[in-house]
Amino acid sequence: MATVAAAARAAQSAAAEAHNKPRGPGVRTAAVIGAGTIGLGWTALFASAGLTVRVNSRRADAEAHVRRAFELYAGSLPGGPADPEALFARLEFEPDVARAVEGADVVQENAPENLALKQELFATIGAAAPSHALLLSSTSTLLPDDLGARMTDPGRLLVAHPFNPPHIVPLVEIVTGRRTGPRVVEEAMAFYRGLGKTPVVLRRAVPGFVANRLQSALLRESIHLVREGVVSVAELDEIVISSIGGRWAAVGPFRAFHLGGGPGGLRHWFEHLGAGLEKSWEGLGNPPVDEETVATILSQAEEAFGNRAYEELAAERDAKQTRVIGAVSGPKAEA
Amino acid sequence: MATVAAAARAAQSAAAEAHNKPRGPGVRTAAVIGAGTIGLGWTALFASAGLTVRVNSRRADAEAHVRRAFELYAGSLPGGPADPEALFARLEFEPDVARAVEGADVVQENAPENLALKQELFATIGAAAPSHALLLSSTSTLLPDDLGARMTDPGRLLVAHPFNPPHIVPLVEIVTGRRTGPRVVEEAMAFYRGLGKTPVVLRRAVPGFVANRLQSALLRESIHLVREGVVSVAELDEIVISSIGGRWAAVGPFRAFHLGGGPGGLRHWFEHLGAGLEKSWEGLGNPPVDEETVATILSQAEEAFGNRAYEELAAERDAKQTRVIGAVSGPKAEA
Repeated sequence: MATVAAAARAAQSAAAEAHNKPRGPGVRTAAVIGAGTIGLGWTALFASAGLTVRVNSRRADAEAHVRRAFELYAGSLPGGPADPEALFARLEFEPDVARAVEGADVVQENAPENLALKQELFATIGAAAPSHALLLSSTSTLLPDDLGARMTDPGRLLVAHPFNPPHIVPLVEIVTGRRTGPRVVEEAMAFYRGLGKTPVVLRRAVPGFVANRLQSALLRESIHLVREGVVSVAELDEIVISSIGGRWAAVGPFRAFHLGGGPGGLRHWFEHLGAGLEKSWEGLGNPPVDEETVATILSQAEEAFGNRAYEELAAERDAKQTRVIGAVSGPKAEA
Repeated sequence: MATVAAAARAAQSAAAEAHNKPRGPGVRTAAVIGAGTIGLGWTALFASAGLTVRVNSRRADAEAHVRRAFELYAGSLPGGPADPEALFARLEFEPDVARAVEGADVVQENAPENLALKQELFATIGAAAPSHALLLSSTSTLLPDDLGARMTDPGRLLVAHPFNPPHIVPLVEIVTGRRTGPRVVEEAMAFYRGLGKTPVVLRRAVPGFVANRLQSALLRESIHLVREGVVSVAELDEIVISSIGGRWAAVGPFRAFHLGGGPGGLRHWFEHLGAGLEKSWEGLGNPPVDEETVATILSQAEEAFGNRAYEELAAERDAKQTRVIGAVSGPKAEA
């Protein structure tokens, strides 16, 4: 037992030292664990940034699967349309997890949301990846302390939760564990910023993190309004696109309300509307997600966009969202 | 009493006839009642569309006030930057409500949210405006049946609720009353569509209408997350801009979740996540809007954007939001 403890301490001390060394020549090789929707998006983004990407998937058709995805994604990469074959040439396929992370500078894990599975994966990854490697999980529900429970050095593991599709949507929510070192956070921030992402570190972890909680709050009221027959699914989408969507793409909710308050700003806004806020929240809906509700929404959704193929709708979303992001973050000097 | 009832019937019958007549040469003259933020936005938009605009305001400095606003707005009009002086030349200032609406094809009312005040205004407007005129209220809280309670013919009054700033944000929520004729709704839709707006008719009225309810739901969770110390005001804005903002500018929430479900669409999404939805909603916040909460938000907001002037921040918002709207609705054929 003493030997195990001593070995663990030595490993932790070596790891702590690794955390304090500068990264050196930067990230060259990334391992992507899992080739579902999220893994595929990261793979495309990493490849488009010039990294060598090890794709770890147990799918027998992994190569064909990624190739098909790249055909779809290559047109909407942040740096502009890319040649899918040139991106594909940066990939290496490795079905064994330990071999996939050998020599990797960054590991981005995208396995199904199963804690036991991810704990086992991170135990393997932690043992096989170089000591300087950033170990990043795309989980949307699990926390670093739980994910790293079976690792010798959980201090270099972080949650780095992207939004779908990760090669387009800028946000990466960074969630730290009790043992995460500040240098690891800095390195992860530098890595994602270098890819053109917008990483934001949560000050503390909450279930669902931030963006999905906000999304869920809006969805609750959306379902309520459709259920109550105030608007249809298509009308609700149209309302959001033509009002708060465009507003929140340009400025966040707090700045929007600050400006809504006129020259007196958020203070004036709270003075005039603050008292009514709690009351207005009481009037918001809390719909049941029962069979009837789901049937109503599915039938209206079918009418709204059921006649168009997934690939076509996804490509349209990606193209529009890419243009929106460019409109906000791009050069201000357009005529 | 019989005479009054007969006169009312005759007036209603004449009004019904007016509703069924085609509009003829279209809208040439609009009266804008009130020159607050919303009235100013409508004035700029109407003028930029080539209408003659009667501005009704009791402000002694109404002309100088509108001129200042036009300097700010002229750069972010939907048709591209305009010459503020050319827009200004389309205005007529008339402090008397009855005279302002004489001969107007459209009246857009933007008085303070005071029912008695608006009822009196619409009684005056209904008596003085031509029988074919569309009578539109920008109210965000009151209903047509209440607004028209003192009118002889409330059937041509509609709520047409814009989002701030109305010359930029496309949405107009159309809310009808019990006596609103279908032709009036069609004419209002045609009028706003002709201005490049996105009018959406609510199937039934609910307090706060739709967009403000959705906004309020997201704000509740935003305040909760700041209050709980998960993120700061600035971080929350950054998260929204870089994730759900851009997403909802491109596709609405239902289509986004439909695509989030992959090729199986919304049906697959509900099968996998539907059961967890109600549970996740239980975990959302319901913060008090007490002194401490407001103080926390104001102090963080001060730090985030308190060092910049309202006009500068508003101009930046307007420019960004105009680019976002162009990115989604503009020609698809950009390289």
